[in-house]
Amino acid sequence: MVIEEDTICALSTANGVGAIAVIRVSGKEALTITSRIFSKNLEDFSSHTVHFGTIRDTQKNVIDEVLVTILKEGKSFTGENTTEIACHGSIYIQQQILSLLLETGCRMANPGEFTMRAYFNDRMDLSQAEAIADLIAADSKKAHEVAMNQMRGGYSELIIHLRQRLMDFASLIELELDFSEEDVEFASRTELHDLVKELKGHLTELTDSFAYGNVIKNGVSTVIAGRPNAGKSTLLNALLNEERAIVSQIAGTTRDTIEERLTIDGILYNFIDTAGIREAKGEIEKMGVERTISEVRKSNVLLYVFDTIEMSSTEVQEDIQKLERDGLSIILLANKVDEVPDFNSSKFATDHTLIPISAKEKQGIDQLKEQLSKEVEKLATESDTIVINARHYEAFSKALSDIYQVEEALEIQIPGDLLAMDIRSAIRHLSSIIGDITEDDLLGNIFANFCIGK
Amino acid sequence: MVIEEDTICALSTANGVGAIAVIRVSGKEALTITSRIFSKNLEDFSSHTVHFGTIRDTQKNVIDEVLVTILKEGKSFTGENTTEIACHGSIYIQQQILSLLLETGCRMANPGEFTMRAYFNDRMDLSQAEAIADLIAADSKKAHEVAMNQMRGGYSELIIHLRQRLMDFASLIELELDFSEEDVEFASRTELHDLVKELKGHLTELTDSFAYGNVIKNGVSTVIAGRPNAGKSTLLNALLNEERAIVSQIAGTTRDTIEERLTIDGILYNFIDTAGIREAKGEIEKMGVERTISEVRKSNVLLYVFDTIEMSSTEVQEDIQKLERDGLSIILLANKVDEVPDFNSSKFATDHTLIPISAKEKQGIDQLKEQLSKEVEKLATESDTIVINARHYEAFSKALSDIYQVEEALEIQIPGDLLAMDIRSAIRHLSSIIGDITEDDLLGNIFANFCIGK
Repeated sequence: MVIEEDTICALSTANGVGAIAVIRVSGKEALTITSRIFSKNLEDFSSHTVHFGTIRDTQKNVIDEVLVTILKEGKSFTGENTTEIACHGSIYIQQQILSLLLETGCRMANPGEFTMRAYFNDRMDLSQAEAIADLIAADSKKAHEVAMNQMRGGYSELIIHLRQRLMDFASLIELELDFSEEDVEFASRTELHDLVKELKGHLTELTDSFAYGNVIKNGVSTVIAGRPNAGKSTLLNALLNEERAIVSQIAGTTRDTIEERLTIDGILYNFIDTAGIREAKGEIEKMGVERTISEVRKSNVLLYVFDTIEMSSTEVQEDIQKLERDGLSIILLANKVDEVPDFNSSKFATDHTLIPISAKEKQGIDQLKEQLSKEVEKLATESDTIVINARHYEAFSKALSDIYQVEEALEIQIPGDLLAMDIRSAIRHLSSIIGDITEDDLLGNIFANFCIGK
Repeated sequence: MVIEEDTICALSTANGVGAIAVIRVSGKEALTITSRIFSKNLEDFSSHTVHFGTIRDTQKNVIDEVLVTILKEGKSFTGENTTEIACHGSIYIQQQILSLLLETGCRMANPGEFTMRAYFNDRMDLSQAEAIADLIAADSKKAHEVAMNQMRGGYSELIIHLRQRLMDFASLIELELDFSEEDVEFASRTELHDLVKELKGHLTELTDSFAYGNVIKNGVSTVIAGRPNAGKSTLLNALLNEERAIVSQIAGTTRDTIEERLTIDGILYNFIDTAGIREAKGEIEKMGVERTISEVRKSNVLLYVFDTIEMSSTEVQEDIQKLERDGLSIILLANKVDEVPDFNSSKFATDHTLIPISAKEKQGIDQLKEQLSKEVEKLATESDTIVINARHYEAFSKALSDIYQVEEALEIQIPGDLLAMDIRSAIRHLSSIIGDITEDDLLGNIFANFCIGK
């Protein structure tokens, strides 16, 4: 991929009207171009300084009074000369300043192009660059924590360290090949075996962490199911009422599905209320079991709500049998217990956790939240480092499979050249994460998913 | 009004997720408080410098890597010590940093409080402070130009100059009162008469400009009316299609009204299509004339569309008579002229401008736009300075009425003490615009209409 030499600009703050907005300009000519529309020559000033002045259009009309920050080559986010123009936040002014920059020598930045330039200028490795997009998208404490950790290095150092040791082995093994007629062994097979064991440990931990990482990044998909009038929507409201401030209703994937987002204990949950079931008459089988099953298939957790008074243990078991599957956490919620003075949960004996609740009276909601956190914790790994990026997960998985190949090769004492090939493949997959070896197409893909201005 | 000594903070960029967001902190302790959560002691650095570092929460977890700009007392927008924290633009990070600032000594800023502090610290007068809100809200070239002009001084200097001369007269007249037994005349009545004449000119110009200013600020309210199937919605589409990029559909004030915004030649137009008329059967009288009349009453321009083939001149005249009123510009649009090879507009002779169009074929649309600009120009005054602020308009009007009183007083040679009272009243009204004499309640009102963070 050719490093672009031109100067790019974009609005870096959120779209819309604000008190101020910031337009970022980056590239060799950033200071020169900004000076063309600004009342001072910015090239005279040093890096990390801020300058008040006016932006004028080509007819010398004042467009705005602004503060321009200068960040010089080698000292900026991108590594290039950068100016950040803090203007008044009207859309008109934003558009005018961007137009002026385009007229005087800038090009509109592509999504993620500032970060891509930072990567090309060795300001960060690829996994750190990708973490910036995750950081900006993070909307819960845990998602933020994982993205921040990765942005600040994360597993980059571990990868570099393990890769170096693999490379040393690969070189020694390749050296053996040069002396193949002498039957020497520069690379200690015992040491390589130890390294393979260590790598298996690390890589398994990292790939295992992705299930948790995925839930952290995208939220815990939690379906609320149950027969009509079991109290599903009352339950959803009871959950949401507690945290109204951070709740937003978003359009569901189907007309009959309501999805609500809620953060509990730093983790985001997407609650899917299969509302269609609510409307229909008759039993769960008759109207919505397929839809419920299909929602459950995509989910991490099922909250099965039932009416303690109306339902028999057999009926509950029947419903659960239709819905359960491997990897799905099921929590049974015996609703309306406020109407049953002598409720005894043993009547509904089951393998799954059962919580007596009253959605109406908001009883048992805290206990439910605790249980949800426990279910998510089951996914958590020992490792501090959590993989939330699907591309990294894939590369780690491939590297792990290469390492298994190396292990097998060692066991059956395969020739050195084949062994070296497997090691090189593992090295390549590890390198692709931090971006030392990466194809152009892939890079294009990664940065295209960024927001403009970053 | 007591100047607050505490330190305030707020998100200054637009709400939502962006590549970056800026949080502004202002007050005596701005540097001290920001240093508490930042990795460097900002008090060591000079004004107008930028510093990279980390924000950590009270448990020392990294919340973000940020750039902090320092603007010191006397050199910032507010005139107070200010820091601007440019963080990654996730809502989570924005909220966390604001929470940390609140925990460590800041208070959330009220709407417009940064600007109010700028006013109290003599960084600008009141009319300039108000212009900032207008500037941020400006969504057309002309509205931006007028707000920018006012923010950069506008009529402030004129007011200060005229007021000074009035004050000199008032002082001299009051001095005469001390020597009342000697019948001296320190204040030349001829000169005062000349000043009154000059003031009348300026103030009339300014108050007259408000009709134009109001249209610039809020857009030209333009009703499209006509009988069913005259081609009203086709016309609206023809107008909008030309400028699709800057068009947005907004919910009308009634269910049957569609309002579309469009900028022509730097001026914003709100087109109101009285859609109810379109749906109904029968003549204009039968179904929607009241609604149309009520829309027309609130509007600046009426576009009356009629079907050239179907309608007689008499019918057109009848409709117009029902709708016309003083101050309303009426443009007649003879639609469907593409179907009439030998169209002759003299058939529909009228006092109003008539434009032959074909909404369907987009004929005559440019001519219509030119005519709209001409109608708006009729409102424009000679003056460069345009009043767009209703509070200023009111104050100028009151000052003008005081000046008429002074003129009358001069003519009937009223005693000096009464004359001085009228002059003082005019001075007070002029002063209220730039804020030298203003009540607390009024100030509260003005700044409450600002956006947060400004």
